[in-house]
Amino acid sequence: MTLMISTSVLDAENASRRDALTRDYESLGDRLARRGIDIDAVKAKVAAYGVAVPSWGVGTGGTRFARFPGPGEPRNIFDKLEDCAVIQQLTRATPAVSLHIPWDKVSDLGALKEKGSALGLSFDAMNSNTFSDAPGQAHSYKFGSLSHTDSATRRQAIEHNLECVEIGKALGSKALTVWVGDGSNFPGQSNFTRAFERYLDSMKAVYAALPDDWRIFTEHKMFEPAFYSTVVQDWGTNYLIAQELGPKAFCLVDLGHHAPNVNIEMIVARLIQFKKLGGFHFNDSKYGDDDLDTGSIDPYRLFLVFNELVDAETRAANGFDPAHMLDQSHNVTDPIESLMTSAMEVGRAYAQALIVDRKALAGYQEENDALMASETLKTAFRTDVEPILATARLENDGAIAPVAAYRASGYRARVAAERPAVAGGGGGIV
Amino acid sequence: MTLMISTSVLDAENASRRDALTRDYESLGDRLARRGIDIDAVKAKVAAYGVAVPSWGVGTGGTRFARFPGPGEPRNIFDKLEDCAVIQQLTRATPAVSLHIPWDKVSDLGALKEKGSALGLSFDAMNSNTFSDAPGQAHSYKFGSLSHTDSATRRQAIEHNLECVEIGKALGSKALTVWVGDGSNFPGQSNFTRAFERYLDSMKAVYAALPDDWRIFTEHKMFEPAFYSTVVQDWGTNYLIAQELGPKAFCLVDLGHHAPNVNIEMIVARLIQFKKLGGFHFNDSKYGDDDLDTGSIDPYRLFLVFNELVDAETRAANGFDPAHMLDQSHNVTDPIESLMTSAMEVGRAYAQALIVDRKALAGYQEENDALMASETLKTAFRTDVEPILATARLENDGAIAPVAAYRASGYRARVAAERPAVAGGGGGIV
Amino acid sequence: MTLMISTSVLDAENASRRDALTRDYESLGDRLARRGIDIDAVKAKVAAYGVAVPSWGVGTGGTRFARFPGPGEPRNIFDKLEDCAVIQQLTRATPAVSLHIPWDKVSDLGALKEKGSALGLSFDAMNSNTFSDAPGQAHSYKFGSLSHTDSATRRQAIEHNLECVEIGKALGSKALTVWVGDGSNFPGQSNFTRAFERYLDSMKAVYAALPDDWRIFTEHKMFEPAFYSTVVQDWGTNYLIAQELGPKAFCLVDLGHHAPNVNIEMIVARLIQFKKLGGFHFNDSKYGDDDLDTGSIDPYRLFLVFNELVDAETRAANGFDPAHMLDQSHNVTDPIESLMTSAMEVGRAYAQALIVDRKALAGYQEENDALMASETLKTAFRTDVEPILATARLENDGAIAPVAAYRASGYRARVAAERPAVAGGGGGIV
Amino acid sequence: MTLMISTSVLDAENASRRDALTRDYESLGDRLARRGIDIDAVKAKVAAYGVAVPSWGVGTGGTRFARFPGPGEPRNIFDKLEDCAVIQQLTRATPAVSLHIPWDKVSDLGALKEKGSALGLSFDAMNSNTFSDAPGQAHSYKFGSLSHTDSATRRQAIEHNLECVEIGKALGSKALTVWVGDGSNFPGQSNFTRAFERYLDSMKAVYAALPDDWRIFTEHKMFEPAFYSTVVQDWGTNYLIAQELGPKAFCLVDLGHHAPNVNIEMIVARLIQFKKLGGFHFNDSKYGDDDLDTGSIDPYRLFLVFNELVDAETRAANGFDPAHMLDQSHNVTDPIESLMTSAMEVGRAYAQALIVDRKALAGYQEENDALMASETLKTAFRTDVEPILATARLENDGAIAPVAAYRASGYRARVAAERPAVAGGGGGIV
Repeated sequence: MTLMISTSVLDAENASRRDALTRDYESLGDRLARRGIDIDAVKAKVAAYGVAVPSWGVGTGGTRFARFPGPGEPRNIFDKLEDCAVIQQLTRATPAVSLHIPWDKVSDLGALKEKGSALGLSFDAMNSNTFSDAPGQAHSYKFGSLSHTDSATRRQAIEHNLECVEIGKALGSKALTVWVGDGSNFPGQSNFTRAFERYLDSMKAVYAALPDDWRIFTEHKMFEPAFYSTVVQDWGTNYLIAQELGPKAFCLVDLGHHAPNVNIEMIVARLIQFKKLGGFHFNDSKYGDDDLDTGSIDPYRLFLVFNELVDAETRAANGFDPAHMLDQSHNVTDPIESLMTSAMEVGRAYAQALIVDRKALAGYQEENDALMASETLKTAFRTDVEPILATARLENDGAIAPVAAYRASGYRARVAAERPAVAGGGGGIV
Repeated sequence: MTLMISTSVLDAENASRRDALTRDYESLGDRLARRGIDIDAVKAKVAAYGVAVPSWGVGTGGTRFARFPGPGEPRNIFDKLEDCAVIQQLTRATPAVSLHIPWDKVSDLGALKEKGSALGLSFDAMNSNTFSDAPGQAHSYKFGSLSHTDSATRRQAIEHNLECVEIGKALGSKALTVWVGDGSNFPGQSNFTRAFERYLDSMKAVYAALPDDWRIFTEHKMFEPAFYSTVVQDWGTNYLIAQELGPKAFCLVDLGHHAPNVNIEMIVARLIQFKKLGGFHFNDSKYGDDDLDTGSIDPYRLFLVFNELVDAETRAANGFDPAHMLDQSHNVTDPIESLMTSAMEVGRAYAQALIVDRKALAGYQEENDALMASETLKTAFRTDVEPILATARLENDGAIAPVAAYRASGYRARVAAERPAVAGGGGGIV
Repeated sequence: MTLMISTSVLDAENASRRDALTRDYESLGDRLARRGIDIDAVKAKVAAYGVAVPSWGVGTGGTRFARFPGPGEPRNIFDKLEDCAVIQQLTRATPAVSLHIPWDKVSDLGALKEKGSALGLSFDAMNSNTFSDAPGQAHSYKFGSLSHTDSATRRQAIEHNLECVEIGKALGSKALTVWVGDGSNFPGQSNFTRAFERYLDSMKAVYAALPDDWRIFTEHKMFEPAFYSTVVQDWGTNYLIAQELGPKAFCLVDLGHHAPNVNIEMIVARLIQFKKLGGFHFNDSKYGDDDLDTGSIDPYRLFLVFNELVDAETRAANGFDPAHMLDQSHNVTDPIESLMTSAMEVGRAYAQALIVDRKALAGYQEENDALMASETLKTAFRTDVEPILATARLENDGAIAPVAAYRASGYRARVAAERPAVAGGGGGIV
Repeated sequence: MTLMISTSVLDAENASRRDALTRDYESLGDRLARRGIDIDAVKAKVAAYGVAVPSWGVGTGGTRFARFPGPGEPRNIFDKLEDCAVIQQLTRATPAVSLHIPWDKVSDLGALKEKGSALGLSFDAMNSNTFSDAPGQAHSYKFGSLSHTDSATRRQAIEHNLECVEIGKALGSKALTVWVGDGSNFPGQSNFTRAFERYLDSMKAVYAALPDDWRIFTEHKMFEPAFYSTVVQDWGTNYLIAQELGPKAFCLVDLGHHAPNVNIEMIVARLIQFKKLGGFHFNDSKYGDDDLDTGSIDPYRLFLVFNELVDAETRAANGFDPAHMLDQSHNVTDPIESLMTSAMEVGRAYAQALIVDRKALAGYQEENDALMASETLKTAFRTDVEPILATARLENDGAIAPVAAYRASGYRARVAAERPAVAGGGGGIV
């Protein structure tokens, strides 16, 4: 297997931190044992956990106002896979990559699959794109795609999704994620009902072509790029879609796609209860679909989402098998650093949720002891589980401190020298 | 039939406005005719339209900080019915009253029904109350009602709903509206899934006892009185309830119960499309469940909701038969004046939606002519339909200018003399 | 003066609508007279009113996901001025254009000024751009501009603003509008206090170079492009800036730059009261800085803003002289049509505010007659003032129905033939 | 000094936890030492820190829908002081109580002061109440108080504030907190400018009577009890007030009084920078002014607020001396437990902010290393500082685990037996 970061750098980095980590792990183990928790069992679960990385995440993102690229931007999916391999090597938490078509389209799928294998990466859910026009495309998506009033445009969008499935089959993917920007900017522009009927008809055509062992994930979003109405605007509509399509259809929850103040963990619980939670696009946000680094704004909210997931896992909820993926826009950081940190944040929330005293919690809930129920969650959240995460990484040949190891490796400077600088772009779209 | 306002006052008031109204109606008819619209047909529809008044709406509302009562507060449901009769006499748009149990509980239901008949009022949906404790109640709803962890408390809440149905049957009502405040104030306080399972079980027990010709309306609300999670928090959960319960179960939409920025008219469209729109609690809001007078904050939003309703009515959407009710808190106005004005605002939105050029709109939607689609709605909304509403009222023996007629009648001073002043209350709940 | 639309087309269009307009104007005059309002006086004020058009508004806008250009996109500021001239010719409500530097930078300012004169357009406030990197720029604005931690970058941003002033002086502009995207995406990324100190220092350098008869407008915005904190995030900070800078500094209010639910008309009132209202960027929004067409989402809110403006105008508030400009992103419409319609919407809100019965309103406010105060505003808002606007346009040689006249003229097809199609862009910025 | 909880109970509770605490404190000290932090120095600061408790907080709160009292509700301010003394005895973090007039009005101020002394409690800021009508009050606050259109009503509100100052002087308080509910429920109901002028005039009269060594805190709030506009709606208006009044006037920040998504820590920074931060009402919220327990919903936000406070403290910001108070509504918990837990949460955020590596942070900020700046804060936040807080309590004769000690003491059952049960109330205010 090709390793992007030299093991000598990594070993030296780990060596400098190993003793302190051992002490911290022991001390934490002692404290957890007092609470009846076996630290090694938690570590084993954390070590087995992974979150997929989006191929587009390793490039610098931007806004409609501007994009400010960083050095060494990946030029194509092969470069992107190498960056993803760095993330996986150091964190040991991101074994799969999620592709975006047509951005990651290649002529030789076999070469792509081989590259992934060589880097130890598999291919997660495929993502279609009918929210922008590819060069030379016959019909524009300016006024919609799967819900467009014109049947030829809808057909084109359906075909594109089918092509994504075909590519995914070649790469070993088992799921298709469909997010559309379809909607309207003016009251009256679109007939809500007819648009949704058209969307459902199109999705049924896609669904019909889905292999038996695949799942299809639909993703809701409140607004942007449409600013008055969006066809798949919330989890209610998303649930209706999954219900209309059938047993292979599930709802994808992106943490930044909801109205202000919405209780997202409750939506997660409802979708689990009705067997339609497909998975997540993890990120964080303060205002809208900010696509900030996971856990950087409201880490307790992330924990509360994982509290629902571990609750479902613990009681072996029927049909519970969500896919986990990061989906962020890295506008001001090195994308590799952001994705490593975010993957660790997801793992941290998982670890914290694992050490919730669920028996005590259930008792407090039954007795309506609101304060102690809250404290039970807070106690788990307050626990600094970093020694667990770091030990899991170390034992899996990753880094105790991935960002430090990455910086020590000089990887960014190396690829900056190899990959030519790209223009900024975005500045004329206001 | 007993008339609360003397016809001589009403006639005098109308006489002073009749000529101007005739001219305005003619001039508007001329303008509408140019757009291919028959003003008399619109007037006929408006004249036939009614919205129910909530019995509690004729008392002065308040907040957790204070309640500032006005003069002549109704002392009981009989007083309330008289106030409601004033509203109906002058607006001719509020033929039914919606009761709230136990607030409107009486020992003699026959007398109550008779009083309604004498005043020309029928009884709309019954409203149960399991969000506050009635004196002497065996089990408290402090920690929930239909979803409470304790089965005896749930049973009590179920029985209360069944009692509401019994009362409603005696009065000629055909629907039960269920809104619960159940939820939690702390993460962890409640297990979302188990609480919803308990809620559904309780509601199934209520549903099972529903007469064949009744409907049951469940009402979602984002927050308040619970401030972290609410069991029936949004239309997605509300839809699941209606689906789980069966064909007599429908979703009620209160305009003030959504997250900030949410597109409510789209939710209305979805519920119509999936045959689960039960009806409305009309009001307006700027921040939360402000319960302000309908149309006082965002009249265009109200129009857009009615645009969906008329769209469904026009295409005779399957299963479309929503109930219309006002639900407001009148903290700084004479409740009778607010309810009259709000009933007229609802009628206004309906009239404006009726004169939308739907054929042109459909064409613009098909061609993605967003600007002209928007202008088609705006043109209807901009039309001052007051002459239509006023003429419909006049021809139905109501008032051209209900507030002016009401003030001229001296009704408030009269009841202030008859009904003793009540204390303010509310001041200690912070 | 060069006319972009042939007068024969315009005359024919107007001829077909003139009789109906005359009747409608008379009928409206009759109704207004009954309320003690002289329709001709209102018309005169409306006719004298103008709103500036942003040069960038005549191009198609987009989002970070995609931009879908329309036919005949303007290639440069000369093309843009021609499009602006169409808007002014037909609406007679947009006599000035606001430029954006460097987007509208030219080598020959004299030619630009002459072109404006020939088209009957003057130059409104200059807009600087330090939120994106121009090709070849020495220092990047990736991490801020006027508040950047690096003094050379701040100096560059200051110089750019000074250059904008110089260009504006040559063109007859009298104001500089400064909006920066400076902020942060992570808690901790920026020290709020130091960043604001640096911003103020930079702005003081710009202010020092401002000609005596110029004003400087600073614009606040809650978020985007920065997603955790923004240096000039709200009107409170904006007020502090204007206060720190001095008497030529004022606050600019963009209707889409506030937190959800915020009462914008109240902010307008506060800024007027404290003599710091500089002007407006008009648009509409439902979720964030959606930059939708003015009045398309919440026309009553627009009216309430104008209600404050007319209130201040009526009482001749000290220091009250706001600048009016549209600032919208036209993603799915012909930008010329959107700007014409929006200019008319602004005029409509002004006309509606002019016919508010201010004496009655003051009385109701004094007596706390909330309902009648509200009805006083609603009565004005409900009045269809289109005949006033259309007559004002007609008498100023504009179009009774600008969009219809524009479509009849074939202008878009003509420029589409002359101006080569442009690429979409935007698709890689997610 | 009177101790409400017997020392034998407390000692037994502490004894059972002391060994584990010693180990945890040592282990944490070891980890902090590695980061260059002296745990004892942090502990000393935490031990010296206190937050005031609101007298009304020890009673059960409610909503406009209902209030569900708990057992042993305090009957008067003497009972309330005893409950507050429990909180202080166990947490050693709440040495002062903030009174609310007229709720806490007594005939014998000397007795009240003595009772406080006996319990080891001092008196923090006085709170006036002009948002509800006291029995027998001459003028109603239904339509406002300090901003009312009627001068006699304003005068009454001024006098009430002056009385609060007089009471406070007798008790040793040094500050007056003014929060008014003044505002409007309808567009047009209130003239924003005139209402604010009247408010300022009234406040100037209050300010004029303020003793030299007192401060006056004004508190802004977006909405509730007024639902369209609020006179002191945000920090911008609050700043204007403090500026207009003079050097003894400061702004109070309640964490739940802002628009959705607003960056509160930034407002705190601005007020510090402009020397007008008066202090805090701590609580937490998810939707509006939910008045939930501090740190229960978004603990990271609380930490970010304290990060600003410690930043200001570290650089000895000019004029920086904020008052700290809890302000919560305990609807579903034992108020004593909630207040103890919340006081500890405030201390926790303070301790976490104290261990931020500020030198490293400043370096990352200077270099725009957004990721490491964020990680620097997250590292401090992730540290479980409970051993520091618990040791500080223990060394101050408080409880290692205050809630457990309180439950063991049987205090609630004791007062429930002494204090008669109270009615629920609130149920009629909808």
